[in-house]
This record gives sequence, C-alpha cells and structure tokens, in this order.
Amino acid sequence: MGIYTDLAAEARELNPDIEGIEEQIEEKDDVRISRIEVKTEQAAKTIGKAVGHYTTVDAPKLAQREPETFERVGAIVAQELKRLLRCGENAAVAVIGLGNRFITPDALGPRVVENAFVTRHITAYMPEQLMRPIRPVAAIAPGVLGVTGVETLEIVRALVEHVRPAAVIAIDSLASRRAARISTTVQIADTGISPGSGVGNERKGLNAETLGVPVIALGVPTVVYASTITQDTISLIADETGLHGDEEKLLSLAEKVIDQHFGPMVVTPKDIDQIVRDMSSILAYGVNFALHTDYYEDIKALLS
Amino acid sequence: MGIYTDLAAEARELNPDIEGIEEQIEEKDDVRISRIEVKTEQAAKTIGKAVGHYTTVDAPKLAQREPETFERVGAIVAQELKRLLRCGENAAVAVIGLGNRFITPDALGPRVVENAFVTRHITAYMPEQLMRPIRPVAAIAPGVLGVTGVETLEIVRALVEHVRPAAVIAIDSLASRRAARISTTVQIADTGISPGSGVGNERKGLNAETLGVPVIALGVPTVVYASTITQDTISLIADETGLHGDEEKLLSLAEKVIDQHFGPMVVTPKDIDQIVRDMSSILAYGVNFALHTDYYEDIKALLS
Amino acid sequence: MGIYTDLAAEARELNPDIEGIEEQIEEKDDVRISRIEVKTEQAAKTIGKAVGHYTTVDAPKLAQREPETFERVGAIVAQELKRLLRCGENAAVAVIGLGNRFITPDALGPRVVENAFVTRHITAYMPEQLMRPIRPVAAIAPGVLGVTGVETLEIVRALVEHVRPAAVIAIDSLASRRAARISTTVQIADTGISPGSGVGNERKGLNAETLGVPVIALGVPTVVYASTITQDTISLIADETGLHGDEEKLLSLAEKVIDQHFGPMVVTPKDIDQIVRDMSSILAYGVNFALHTDYYEDIKALLS
Amino acid sequence: MGIYTDLAAEARELNPDIEGIEEQIEEKDDVRISRIEVKTEQAAKTIGKAVGHYTTVDAPKLAQREPETFERVGAIVAQELKRLLRCGENAAVAVIGLGNRFITPDALGPRVVENAFVTRHITAYMPEQLMRPIRPVAAIAPGVLGVTGVETLEIVRALVEHVRPAAVIAIDSLASRRAARISTTVQIADTGISPGSGVGNERKGLNAETLGVPVIALGVPTVVYASTITQDTISLIADETGLHGDEEKLLSLAEKVIDQHFGPMVVTPKDIDQIVRDMSSILAYGVNFALHTDYYEDIKALLS
Repeated sequence: MGIYTDLAAEARELNPDIEGIEEQIEEKDDVRISRIEVKTEQAAKTIGKAVGHYTTVDAPKLAQREPETFERVGAIVAQELKRLLRCGENAAVAVIGLGNRFITPDALGPRVVENAFVTRHITAYMPEQLMRPIRPVAAIAPGVLGVTGVETLEIVRALVEHVRPAAVIAIDSLASRRAARISTTVQIADTGISPGSGVGNERKGLNAETLGVPVIALGVPTVVYASTITQDTISLIADETGLHGDEEKLLSLAEKVIDQHFGPMVVTPKDIDQIVRDMSSILAYGVNFALHTDYYEDIKALLS
Repeated sequence: MGIYTDLAAEARELNPDIEGIEEQIEEKDDVRISRIEVKTEQAAKTIGKAVGHYTTVDAPKLAQREPETFERVGAIVAQELKRLLRCGENAAVAVIGLGNRFITPDALGPRVVENAFVTRHITAYMPEQLMRPIRPVAAIAPGVLGVTGVETLEIVRALVEHVRPAAVIAIDSLASRRAARISTTVQIADTGISPGSGVGNERKGLNAETLGVPVIALGVPTVVYASTITQDTISLIADETGLHGDEEKLLSLAEKVIDQHFGPMVVTPKDIDQIVRDMSSILAYGVNFALHTDYYEDIKALLS
Repeated sequence: MGIYTDLAAEARELNPDIEGIEEQIEEKDDVRISRIEVKTEQAAKTIGKAVGHYTTVDAPKLAQREPETFERVGAIVAQELKRLLRCGENAAVAVIGLGNRFITPDALGPRVVENAFVTRHITAYMPEQLMRPIRPVAAIAPGVLGVTGVETLEIVRALVEHVRPAAVIAIDSLASRRAARISTTVQIADTGISPGSGVGNERKGLNAETLGVPVIALGVPTVVYASTITQDTISLIADETGLHGDEEKLLSLAEKVIDQHFGPMVVTPKDIDQIVRDMSSILAYGVNFALHTDYYEDIKALLS
Repeated sequence: MGIYTDLAAEARELNPDIEGIEEQIEEKDDVRISRIEVKTEQAAKTIGKAVGHYTTVDAPKLAQREPETFERVGAIVAQELKRLLRCGENAAVAVIGLGNRFITPDALGPRVVENAFVTRHITAYMPEQLMRPIRPVAAIAPGVLGVTGVETLEIVRALVEHVRPAAVIAIDSLASRRAARISTTVQIADTGISPGSGVGNERKGLNAETLGVPVIALGVPTVVYASTITQDTISLIADETGLHGDEEKLLSLAEKVIDQHFGPMVVTPKDIDQIVRDMSSILAYGVNFALHTDYYEDIKALLS
C-alpha cells in the first residue's frame, strides 16, 4: 500500500497499535508538539521510518499568517532543534539546504540556507572582528543530481570532510498525506535523511553512517501525492458510513484507478510561493536562534 | 453540484446530451482541436459558459517537453487565435495579462505580457523607424484587486479608452477538473472573461459588453480543486464497478467530507514553475505570431 | 553643461549663489534633512527644478546597513512625506511605482508598490471588516512605455479618474551626480515628476497640472552618469591644486572626450541588488507609516 | 599603480612594449579574436597575468543585441574554448560557476551553470538511455565564501576529487578598465583563475596547481572600478593635449582624490540585468557546443 509520507507522525497514525514506539505530546497554547521515538528495528520497518527521535510541531494557526504566530513557532523550532542537536555551544555546524531552488515546493532548503547566519569564514579568517568565540557555521545548497550531475551525498561528504562540523542540519521539503499540513507542520528528526525519502527520491541517505557525524533533519511538508487526497476521502467516507469492509475494496479499486489515470502526480497548494517564503523564514529563524542563542542579535548585526 | 472548471470542453463532457451546443473536432497528428459553439442562452445556462465559440487545443505530448512540440502547438494557437480575432491586419490590439505575477500558477498572464511584441509606442512615436505600417500592440498586466486596490476591469477599461484597440486579448490561468490537462491544454474563446471565473474569483467580467470591443480569452489550466480529484476517482470507480447508484451516494458523501476536511483547496502540480514557463512561452509565440504574422521576424529583430 | 542630476540639493550645490531659493537644514543625530524651496520661476529655470518644495534626507550611515538606521530613516521619510502630503487623514491616496521592474536600478518604484499597504478594496468592498474608517490606498506599477506601448501618464491618469484620490505619491529611481549618494539619500518633493527627468527620460510629467491632484515625488538615486564621476574628480583636483582656470579647460576637454568614448553611459554600484532591496523597504515603511500612522500595526495585521 | 583589470588584453595595452608576450590577431567579419601568449615569468610579473594563453573575443556589435550576432559569437566562443581545452572527446569535464547568484553583476557563473548540459548522472546511472557514449559533464555553482563560510577552492577541490574530470571550466565575472567592454568582450584562458583576481578578491586560485587538472577560465567583464573611468579620461585628455608630463601629475593626484572620495567603488552599467542574461546565454551556448559538439542537438533533446 502506498503510504507516501515523510512524516513519522503520519506513518504512526496509520499504524497506531504497534509496539516499539513511544510518543509524548506537549501542548503550548495552540501549538502541539509530538515527540515520537522509534525504538526498535521491527517498529522502524513497520512504519517505514528509521530508529530515532522525531519531533512534529503542528501549528494550525500558521495558516492565518500572523507575524506573532511565526515568531512563536520559530522559537519552538529553535528549542526542539537544540534538544536533538546535542553538541557544544561553540562546536562547528554545517547547514545543508537540500532540494532544487528553481522548483518552488522543493526550494525550502536553499531558501533557509540563504538566510542562515554563516560565521565560519569570520571565525576562520577574521577572528579579530569578534569580541568572543562564536560557533562556526557553514551553509550550502548543494543542488540536486539532475542539475549538477553529482550525487548530493558526495558534495556534502566533501564539505563535511573539510569543515569537520560536530553536526549537520539538513533541511528538506517533505511529502505529507494531508494537504492541510503543508503550511502548518515542521518535523525535526535526529535520524538524518533516509535513502529515497524526500520529494526527490533518487537520493542516497545523509546520516551519521554516510557522513560520520550526527545529522538532524529539519523539514516542512510542501507537497502531497494526489492519490492520498483520494485515499483520505475514501477513508473518511468509510469512517462516516461505518462500511469498513467496502473501504478496503474501494481503496484497492481507487489505487488501481488512480495509477491508471493520474500516475504518481504530486500536487502542492496554489499559494505555495507564499507558503515556502513564510516557512523558510520560520525555519531560518529556528536554525539561527538554535545555533547562536545568546549572541543571536550580535551576530545578526555583525552580518548585516 | 460543484463543477469547478473554466474549460468549456470539460463543462460539455459533464453535460454530453444537451441541445444548443455544436462541436467540431479536428486532429492534427497528435494534437486535438475541439471547436465548441454554445448557441443558446439555455445551453449557456446549463453548462455555465456564455454563448460563443470555444476552441480547445489538447496536446498530451506537451508533457514530454520537446521543443518541436512547443513550436507546433504555438503555431496552432496562433492560427486558432486569428480565426476568432477577426480584425484588420493592422488594427490595434491590446494584450491584457490577468493574474498575480507573484503566485506562480496565477502568473501565466503577466508572463505572456512580458514576452509580447509591443509596438504601439513605435507606431505612435517613432513611425519613421518603420519601413511599412505594422499593427500597434499595447500590453499590460494590470495586477489583481487584492494587490492594487483597484478592480482589474477599471484599469483595463481606462487602457481601452486611451488605446482604442479593435480587439482585446485577455490571458488568464484557468481551473480544470483534471490535473493531467495542466500542461497540455490551451483554450481560446471569443466570449471574454466572465464574472467570477478564473482562478481569482472576485473579478468583474472583461467582455464586449463591459469594454465595448471584442475580447478574446486565451488561457491554460494551471490548477485543479482538490475535490475534483476525488470526484473523478469516485466516478471512475463507479464506471468500473457499474455501481452508478452508489456513485451518487458516494459523491454526495464525498462532497460533504471534502468540504469539512479540505475546504476549497486549490492544488497545482509540483513542477508548476516549469509548466508556467513553458506554457507562457507557447502562448507568447501564439499571440505574437497571430498579431504580426507576416512581419514576425522583422518585429522580433526590431524589438531586440 | 551637462548637470545630470535629479536631486534639487545637488542642482543647488552647483548654483550656490542664486536668488529665489531658500534652504533650511535640520540635523537629527547623524541624519541631515535639507528643506529647499524653489520660489521663483527664474530660480527654477536656473537650477532646472520646478517651483516647489524639495526635502533631501541624507543618512551616510545607511551605507553600513544596520537595521536600526533603516528604521530611523524610514520614520524620518514618513514624517517628511506627511509634511508635504497635506491631505485629510482618511483621504484616498494613490501610490504609483514608476520604472521597469526588470531593470534592477529602475525597479525601486515597483518594489515599493509591492510592499505598500493597499486598503482601497477593503474600504470599497468589505467595509464590514473594519472597526473604524481607514484611508483608502490604491497602488500600481504602470510599467514603462517601451514595455507596455502606452504612456505612463495615460495609465496613471485613468487610475486617478477612477480612484479619485486626494493626492498621488509617485516613486521613482533618480540619477545623482555622486555615486556615494546612491545608498544614502532620499528626496521628497511636492512638485511631482517633471517631463524628461528620472532615469527613463521619455516620460511626460506626472504633476498637479497633468493629473489634477497634488503629486508628491519620492525617490532615491540609484544611478550616476559615468561622466559625472570624471567631472567630480576634475573638480576635486582643481580644488586641491587651486588651478581653477585649468579646471574649466580640463572640464570642457573632459566632456568632449567622455562624449566620444563613453557616450551617455549610466552606471550603478555593483551591489545595486542589495541597495534597491534595502531602499525600497525603507521607502515602503515610510509610505505605509505616513499613510496609516495611527493604525499602522492594525492594518499590517489585517493585510497579512 | 592600480590597474584593476582582469583582461590580459587590457593589461597588455598598458604595457605594449615588453618582451615575452606574443599576440596574434584574427578578424572574422566584425569580431576580433586576439590570442595572447604570456611566455615568460618576467612578462607575467610585469603585466600581472600568469604565464599561459589568453584569447579575447571582442564583438562591439553585441551591444546592438541582435540574435544573429549572439549565435555567431557563441560559436566562436565554442571554437576558442575547444582550442584551449585539449582533452578527449568523451573525457569528463566539470563546469564551475563562480560568483554570487544574488548580485547581478557577479551572477554570470551561476547563470551559465544553470544552462549547462549536465550529463554525468546519465552516463553514470542511466547509461542504457544513451545510444552511444557521450561526454560526462558535471556543473556546480559553489557560492562565495561570505555566503557559505567555506572557501570556493575547497568545494571545487572536493568535487574534482569525486568526479575526476579531465579538465575544469571555471566561469567568472571580470573587471575591465573600460565600461564599453562589458557587453562585448569574452576572455578564455588556460591559466585558471589566479588568487585575488575576479570581482570578489578573497579567493584562492583555481588552477592546475591547486586542482591537479587543467583549468580553463571563461569570463566576461561586468564591472569597472570607478577610478578607471577617471584615469581613462585623464589619459585621453593627455593624449589629446600632448601634455604627458601633466598626465602623470594629474593621475597621481586623481588617484589620491578618488581614494579619498570614492574608495574602491565598483560600478556596472544600468542595464546589467539584460547584459548578464544575454552574456550568460552566449557563454552557455559556447560551453555546451564545445563540450558536446557532434551531439549537441541530441543532448539538448535528451535533457529537455
């Protein structure tokens, strides 16, 4: 069955009763923070997500585009990112913006990188400009295989070998099962990016195994597979009619029909330009604040 | 029932048996040209499209993005546009690019205008640069109400009063029922743009009645309503199972469920940036070739 | 002699001793506000600027790109704009962004318009959304003659006839004699835009005479004529050597040589993308704050 | 003395009589191809350009922006590039776009990379799609130190180690002494990029020594130092008046004055957006045609 989701929280919803997964939920006003731990390989296999920690920040109010909500969610992203980052205050970090900057729903990573507070060149070449030590941060958007002709992993690996960061933060656009999540959800995971996940699917994984340092994945859903819209509707209908037998039959018919008529069509909301602009600004704030917490304002001024 | 389509050909498919509509179909290799005439007010009311002529150019091969197909379809668009344009060879024409240039699926009109061969300032102020008379063409993208604070119709009306063209070509992004049409269909109509149609729906109509000159509408579907994806799937399932009774019940359930869970969500393919780039280049070629047929190359050189 | 400046303050510097001009200078910390009044037609003719008021805000510290300076200068622009605007608190205003959005140094006007708080459609069509009356603001970027085929004045005139604003604010990129002014100077004038001034020079004037309502011109220099760089250097050399006789000779030689070798070349700093981004954001703040002073935050929230 | 030019042809003009430099000139219609060889370290030191071959293509007619000229110059660039490239027909090549894509005059390299025909991923991962062997081409725009926090050389070195190309083509924006050259000149050199040259000057060299493979530098002037405009004028004046004694005195005064009043100001023509668009399209054609000569059309179709 096609699951088509990059969100651990959605994968778990589809498999609510399996063992080896723990979830803790915190509500902050209107923001819901779910912290899922996939604890066993068995559970990982069932829900199709690697062993590790997944934090999902759900803020439906983001859809109303109020600056106040943006700031609040940015601060929560920063805090959850720090919780999973677990490296020294001044340890070097590399920020990697995955995806293709010329395809709007895929441009989240490159956009966050554009707004990252990059400091490594200052710490390395102009330390005299600094009153005190700060964290060296490097940031690149390595492009995608179809555009560069080179595996993303190879470019990132080379960067990691040269910069020798204590951790990598990899930012990526995600696929969700539910379109409503597109402007309202952020996922942070300490598992890195798995092979084949993400909107572009030819990628090799970026993770502790391939890069040799911890990789925190930070993402926002920007697309859904058209087929999941249908599947959701059919499920909802079955829920409402109580005809769960029919549901299975309908679903399998639906899949056949969708495959024939739509193919693997990936859709995104009409206002994706605005959504990517807003969400990348929230993530950039989250990353910058997590990485330079106490000196955020100083570094902002230094770089302007 | 929600129809949610700007394409007369789709509206007709949903009402195949009504009177007062004529359709003529021509196949050119792999391109299908359907010429529909809505002849009576009764038919217009039933299918929700004004009385007039609608030409639909369907070129599924466009999805493969081959330059050769782009050229061929551009030439067909030019020819069908001329068929409906019916004005003198050197009569002034105003090209209007509707939509919001900052929302990719809505940016088709402004993008075509950017690439239109504008000549009115030359004919009006620098006629000595010309070896022979050419058609004066003006072109603007008037923006949308929410961005300018002014009704599009008012800006266009003012332009028409000043330029006094023999005809207006209004280019707009459309909504289709079927996502597959998004990169492969062009619609040309001599009815203008009706009130409330188009992706943005607060618009007053741009047509012969409101502007005083014939208005040719030229458009490409760039979005679908999420709900139509579901509806299509359910119809296809019903077709396949033969359960047309269940279909009606399911459809009405589906609509209720979709309304609750998705709202009026409008989606677009993930690669919409590329699609809008390609389709606006095809339309621009079609418009430029239709307007400056014999002098196309000369005017291209003059404006470069 | 070629003056090539759109700044009244520079035109006056070149003619320091003529009658019919009054200047008042105010210093606010590191910002210098010069308020020049050209009082007689004779003076207007000599310095090549229409009779009226010209406020020049010089903030050399802007070159350091600190957010704090941006805010401070934005507030001064708002205050000086209000001083010249002289219309009722809730009187309608039309904001016109002149220039070509696809030529970076000419894109200032369109960029400010993109960020203007447009409210006219709310006051006209959704007054129930408002707790109290607010000022109706419309905003358009009409494009340039070479792109639309229509005189800018005609599009603006049509808009003014429909919207019937109490005043127009016209924003434009300017030419300065001194490149250093490009990122640090704002000019506000109650004279409108004169024929032939501005970076693009084929324009008819936008002013009280042509539009029937007061026109406030708001601009920032973004270009210099290459020849003025040479002229300035020669003047500075003459100042330093005391050889003012030679200066005249050199200048006239220089002009001849420049004309032959450079032509009317217009140059802009290498970092013009950043400069236009920063200055348009300062001007947008100035315009929005001047137009919606007491309700600035409310309207910002309403439009987000 | 400040020379401020990246063009070997200009450096030579300033030192016309030195030994160790050979120049051969070919005229093709209105295009002038100058092939300079710097043969000795002594000559290299005097003119500030490394030992090696420099081809300058001067096409003043490019300023008129005719498609026919663009094609003709693109073909000449391809031919001269092949002359210096000297590697097997199917040997791998890495195309590196230097510069900052968000600063228009510096964006030439990234823009060429966007339009390069990248084939390495096909040869490496989908060879079955090919009827015959083709040249593997990889392409990246590594960003600049101030944006990524990482030396460009390090990113490129890593790429070269992974891709193991037979040669590198590095594309960069250049500084010229004469603004008129900005839209009309292309330089191709087999010396790579020297430390400190180019518009951004903190770069380490990209050359055979640092990368281990031949590096062909391909560039177009997009900026001039404001001071060179003055220097040129003073030189021209001195030429015209015959006062070469005064020239030296004036020049040294000019430099002092310019330093004080302008600093190291770098300027670019007002229409730089258009120039970078045109020139990067010419260079992309030149690179693609040089790299895939016989299969240019096939590969264009394959990648569309």
